[in-house]
Amino acid sequence: MRDNIVPVDAPGRLRGLGVDEFQLHGGFWGDLQSTNTAATLRHCLEWMERLGWIANFDRVAAGDLDGDRPGWQFSDSEIYKLMEALAWEYGRTSEAWADETFTALTERIAAAQDDDGYLNTCYGHAGQADRYSDLPSGHELYCTGHLLQAAVARVRTVGEDKLVEVARQAADQVCREFGDDGSNGLCGHPEIEVGLAELGRALNEPRYTEQARLFIERRGRGTLKPITLLDASYFQDDIPIRKADAWRGHAVRALYLAAGAVDVAVDTDDTDLVNAIARQWDRSVERRTYLTGGMGSRHQDEGFGEDWELPPDRAYCETCAGIASNMVSWRLFLATGDVKYADLMERTFYNVIAASPAEDGRAFFYANPLHQRSAAADVRPDEVNPRAEGGVRAPWFDVSCCPTNLARTLASWQAYAASVEGDTVSLLQYANGDMRIELGDGEELALRVTTAYPHEGTIRIEVLEAPDRPITLRLRVPHWADGARLANDTGARAVEPGWARAHDSLEKGAVVVLKLPVEPRFTWPDERIDAVRGCVAVERGPLVLCAESTDLPNAEAIETFRVDPSIPPLAEGDGALVQATMAAATNTPGVLPYGPNPRRIDAAATLELSLIPYHRWAQRGSATMRVFLPTT
Amino acid sequence: MRDNIVPVDAPGRLRGLGVDEFQLHGGFWGDLQSTNTAATLRHCLEWMERLGWIANFDRVAAGDLDGDRPGWQFSDSEIYKLMEALAWEYGRTSEAWADETFTALTERIAAAQDDDGYLNTCYGHAGQADRYSDLPSGHELYCTGHLLQAAVARVRTVGEDKLVEVARQAADQVCREFGDDGSNGLCGHPEIEVGLAELGRALNEPRYTEQARLFIERRGRGTLKPITLLDASYFQDDIPIRKADAWRGHAVRALYLAAGAVDVAVDTDDTDLVNAIARQWDRSVERRTYLTGGMGSRHQDEGFGEDWELPPDRAYCETCAGIASNMVSWRLFLATGDVKYADLMERTFYNVIAASPAEDGRAFFYANPLHQRSAAADVRPDEVNPRAEGGVRAPWFDVSCCPTNLARTLASWQAYAASVEGDTVSLLQYANGDMRIELGDGEELALRVTTAYPHEGTIRIEVLEAPDRPITLRLRVPHWADGARLANDTGARAVEPGWARAHDSLEKGAVVVLKLPVEPRFTWPDERIDAVRGCVAVERGPLVLCAESTDLPNAEAIETFRVDPSIPPLAEGDGALVQATMAAATNTPGVLPYGPNPRRIDAAATLELSLIPYHRWAQRGSATMRVFLPTT
Repeated sequence: MRDNIVPVDAPGRLRGLGVDEFQLHGGFWGDLQSTNTAATLRHCLEWMERLGWIANFDRVAAGDLDGDRPGWQFSDSEIYKLMEALAWEYGRTSEAWADETFTALTERIAAAQDDDGYLNTCYGHAGQADRYSDLPSGHELYCTGHLLQAAVARVRTVGEDKLVEVARQAADQVCREFGDDGSNGLCGHPEIEVGLAELGRALNEPRYTEQARLFIERRGRGTLKPITLLDASYFQDDIPIRKADAWRGHAVRALYLAAGAVDVAVDTDDTDLVNAIARQWDRSVERRTYLTGGMGSRHQDEGFGEDWELPPDRAYCETCAGIASNMVSWRLFLATGDVKYADLMERTFYNVIAASPAEDGRAFFYANPLHQRSAAADVRPDEVNPRAEGGVRAPWFDVSCCPTNLARTLASWQAYAASVEGDTVSLLQYANGDMRIELGDGEELALRVTTAYPHEGTIRIEVLEAPDRPITLRLRVPHWADGARLANDTGARAVEPGWARAHDSLEKGAVVVLKLPVEPRFTWPDERIDAVRGCVAVERGPLVLCAESTDLPNAEAIETFRVDPSIPPLAEGDGALVQATMAAATNTPGVLPYGPNPRRIDAAATLELSLIPYHRWAQRGSATMRVFLPTT
Repeated sequence: MRDNIVPVDAPGRLRGLGVDEFQLHGGFWGDLQSTNTAATLRHCLEWMERLGWIANFDRVAAGDLDGDRPGWQFSDSEIYKLMEALAWEYGRTSEAWADETFTALTERIAAAQDDDGYLNTCYGHAGQADRYSDLPSGHELYCTGHLLQAAVARVRTVGEDKLVEVARQAADQVCREFGDDGSNGLCGHPEIEVGLAELGRALNEPRYTEQARLFIERRGRGTLKPITLLDASYFQDDIPIRKADAWRGHAVRALYLAAGAVDVAVDTDDTDLVNAIARQWDRSVERRTYLTGGMGSRHQDEGFGEDWELPPDRAYCETCAGIASNMVSWRLFLATGDVKYADLMERTFYNVIAASPAEDGRAFFYANPLHQRSAAADVRPDEVNPRAEGGVRAPWFDVSCCPTNLARTLASWQAYAASVEGDTVSLLQYANGDMRIELGDGEELALRVTTAYPHEGTIRIEVLEAPDRPITLRLRVPHWADGARLANDTGARAVEPGWARAHDSLEKGAVVVLKLPVEPRFTWPDERIDAVRGCVAVERGPLVLCAESTDLPNAEAIETFRVDPSIPPLAEGDGALVQATMAAATNTPGVLPYGPNPRRIDAAATLELSLIPYHRWAQRGSATMRVFLPTT
């Protein structure tokens, strides 16, 4: 059997598509991936050269550590994430530049590795703090985890090479240092777990899985010294992972940890642990997740809030948290086959991940709020943005985790588009292109997907090649798709959200057409979400829409329109049109905004309010914006 | 003319009461002040001895700086704030302990002062960073500012003594270092301005006023190096103070700066500068202030948010910001005589400042949110609380600015209760007790105020002594007091919010009775405050009320009751009773809380919901709580 070129691969289980099994042909995801290829990968490389983050490896190799070290203590990880992206890119396209760049970076990185396998440009050398001397904040194992993920991508696309050997030695050093006979330490930022678990699979090395298991079980017992003004929940060291009910603390940390836990649970047949993560997913999706799929309600600790604490304006919804959420959902999907995980992934792909990059692939949202009260200041193309505020797609950040995370995700997007289990193929995400899927026995199923989804709801699937035996093709019908229909040569029928079985026997030339309803629709929040009480949102297919001041008389108008929910939204372009009233609210400086009578804003004019897909907001210049629309 | 024993004293202007001019007799503020006297002052002293913050002065004096220095870089300021409290306490009560403690602390502090006047236990000595080497974060001038405020309290209550001399030398050093011929530096945390300005008045030293003016004018020009992940607005170095429209960034910093600016503006007859601060007050009160008077919408930077960004759950509303807000309002009141400033002060006194101390005066709220979603964990009486979360009255904090700030405010509370201008006396805050007020010519007006305000609305004022000439007595009728009545020996009449002239000629034995309506009332938020849309609050006189889970079937019920606003609230104890419905909300783990239909919580039962004064919440144990009540 072939190796699967996939980010997550538990042998013998449901698997995702190899990145080489689905060739995108333009369309929503094809275009995003092309921009990633053409612009983002090089953009990340250029910035990290310019800032000296890559040269940190050269300096360590040369023993030349005088002067300030550029970059935060976790900057090494950005190079590793870019390398992971390059590995997927090469595996998908065989483009020489990706391989050459990967190889060149490997040389520089390998030169900085200590003899015993330790590899980090910020600690452990003359003039630097000792290795592992600051586990709560040092991010050393976090960096190593990303190194291992880059190696996983490499070994699955090219095979064992120098970077894989570097990773193996680094992993071995971690196992010696933190194994059962070593220190009881933990890294403040989970990531090593998912890296070790997947490298264990890729290299068939159960010691790595075991080390990941140790880190996961060790956590939640107050081992880490709290960081000033934050408590142990910040890095999930407050409650053992099996006992927690919901995600809490720093969102990316919580989700990376959960992803690693599912990997370990699957490899060790630990049903209790899978169930714990599934329970946390359930609870967090019910009470701590935004309409966009975004996670993280607080700027203070980049963290989850309490149940129902989902402010749209101060939503953090870090791009990386969206990526991490999909890492968890994907693993739970592979472990359980439950369609709900793919549903949330679609929501997050379209409304968090796709929102981040600018059209040119050279600037990125870091935070993804659902309400922008003031238009953000413009960012210069040569400026390192110090802050992760909403409304700013910046070319680079002081803490610049999102651009490279996005790069590796877009470079491997097709891995999440379908799953394969024996002779059952399930299409999960719809995109224009050709699939050539290896089935259980090595034979192939070739499909052509033709669609303008999500802008249109018709998805046409043609069988180009199929083996001469019954193959099951299932199509995911999204949870919002009330009124979906499926047509094949035996006729058309209504299909319910969940799985739609497309055809009993697939033969070359067979055509299946799924029609999803992508008319605009109102979506109402649970009344316990205090921050959006009295508001309605508009969605269109998988897209969350928003109102942007670019389409309003002025920036302040974002606060004073009121939508009439008795009139259904109409389609307009790829957005919608809703009926609203506008008011000139009374301003009374010096008077508190509280009084003895309900303070309604009187309608001064009617307005046809244009809504656009959320993922495109602020592309026409900085603006105010809101997803949840106050109603009349 | 006598010296006025007041925190703010611009000669020849409207003045507040000397702390010795109003003897409180129990009641709301008398009881709080007694607890401050009996418990809080010693509590603060004991904690700062235990943690070694006071001993830092001894170590500097002895040149013994080996080992870690306990406390943050601003811990000196806490000792100074306690000394200010002790000075007011002694000035008010002549209690020997307060004076002896002040004197003993003075000796230890004076011994740590360098020969040139510089005084700080964290910088400038062997093994420490250089003086003023970290102006953005070092807080040196902030500490000095509090030293000067302590000296102001001392000189006004006792006269010039050793502490005043220490302060004078410290102020002189600041003037040399940062004067026109010195460095162009600024402190990241304003406070030196208000200290210098008031010390300039107290010692008749215009150089100090001028130095305060320099610091104020220098600010807002990007001089300070931004702190990681924060921008220049954090410490108000983004916009020159005359040009700003509203307060922004760290709330305490913004407000201390504004207070100092009013002092300087008054002393230099700078109408433009007073008007700038008044304009910022107007705009910030209209759009950035909570119903409680609390300021600061964000935990991230302890800062103001955008206009209308007033989340009740993540309200920071630091106790110190309430104190600082009253410092600004008081100065604007003295500068303009506008009653609106005293109105906001009353709101902030009752609903921010009075909320902070526990009943025993040995634990304190730091943050004052208007909605608590989860009951806070209990705090041990010997525990230093690392965090400024809501719901926890803690005995001490890692950053422990609030307890000593509260101590100095409560020790001098009567200063804000009335103002005097020639022969016009204006009562601003109502409390039970005896006033003996010096008028313009040195003669005295003695009044007895008898009231159970705010629990009852009747305020009886009896003239005990009065000079033999017309004296004007004005009473503040709060902005919410619709239906207030004033009775004197000529009859009773309705009075409007604002000023009510009590009597044309005050004679010994004359009695005036003000009746304020303190029945519970609904208060509605402006519809632009997104976070409380569809909610109503209940107030009673100056008190904001709240629902607490202690009075509900369970902690989660705080999310699921709905108040019927068609039935007016009824008085119950010192709180209110409102009609509500309760529901068992449907929980559907794994399903996003957004759907195609309005998700109303169906009424499952009716409920008479008890509300208590906000300032008393969490006194019966940790609880969930909310001020803004969702309506049916």
